[in-house]
Amino acid sequence: MTNPVTENRRHFEDLAVGEVINLGTTSVSKEMITSFAREFDPFPFHLDEKAAKESLLGGLASSGWQTGGLSLRMLVDNFLSKIASCGGLGFTDLKWKAPVMVGDTIGGTATIAELRRSKSHPQWGIVTLDFDIRNQKDKPVMSMRLANLIECRTPETAA
Amino acid sequence: MTNPVTENRRHFEDLAVGEVINLGTTSVSKEMITSFAREFDPFPFHLDEKAAKESLLGGLASSGWQTGGLSLRMLVDNFLSKIASCGGLGFTDLKWKAPVMVGDTIGGTATIAELRRSKSHPQWGIVTLDFDIRNQKDKPVMSMRLANLIECRTPETAA
Repeated sequence: MTNPVTENRRHFEDLAVGEVINLGTTSVSKEMITSFAREFDPFPFHLDEKAAKESLLGGLASSGWQTGGLSLRMLVDNFLSKIASCGGLGFTDLKWKAPVMVGDTIGGTATIAELRRSKSHPQWGIVTLDFDIRNQKDKPVMSMRLANLIECRTPETAA
Repeated sequence: MTNPVTENRRHFEDLAVGEVINLGTTSVSKEMITSFAREFDPFPFHLDEKAAKESLLGGLASSGWQTGGLSLRMLVDNFLSKIASCGGLGFTDLKWKAPVMVGDTIGGTATIAELRRSKSHPQWGIVTLDFDIRNQKDKPVMSMRLANLIECRTPETAA
């Protein structure tokens, strides 16, 4: 049974380990940082410029969770919306390597690290992606590994 | 040198492995789900009720990244704002176990799994927290392990 929403998108069988997805870039404004922080991470170093200057971060910086959310959005726009994605399973090894400051532009790549079929659900596969997110100076700011469900064209066990 | 912002808060030495932090609860509305999804995770099953009903999730469900953000906010309110926290380092083993649907109330605990001093920065310690996030039916919806920096009262290496 084909899925009318996803039938024309790339499926599990169309992906290859080592494929590199260019995530494009996103610029991070003061308003983005403070509005996200008010909702999810209300620390002075994400909300108040003076407090931020005196903190470890040395200036107003985005919540690490926001950096992750923006990276996810870049993956949706550049990859997940073009494949037969069924949703995320989880993340591992997320590391915040450097703060993302007001005015920074972040971007980077996601590389397919692993492809395996679900044992319990032969109609699905799992694609594992390694993120390398950097700022405009090419300095790494975040890495993480995402596991995402994807439909298989042919549900049988791979040969 | 004491930090005037954090000196009256709990420091590294005041925490113990096994301490359980009650995170309280947060209710998740349709408006919260769709506004987060529009910004970070614009999939039909997070935005459109009809498409969501026909998806794997069976109804409008929050972005997993939003469930994580709401859990982080509960940790800030109930723990991080009361300790001498210097910011997050990263997390690992995040698993989305069940969808969070419109009208669900999520909550749970974070348990101190590990406490260690930084080798390179004797003024800091690292507290590792295991999240167990459940819905109103006590069904697990998300787990993850967060590593967070915290000031030590006494910077010397622990005996």
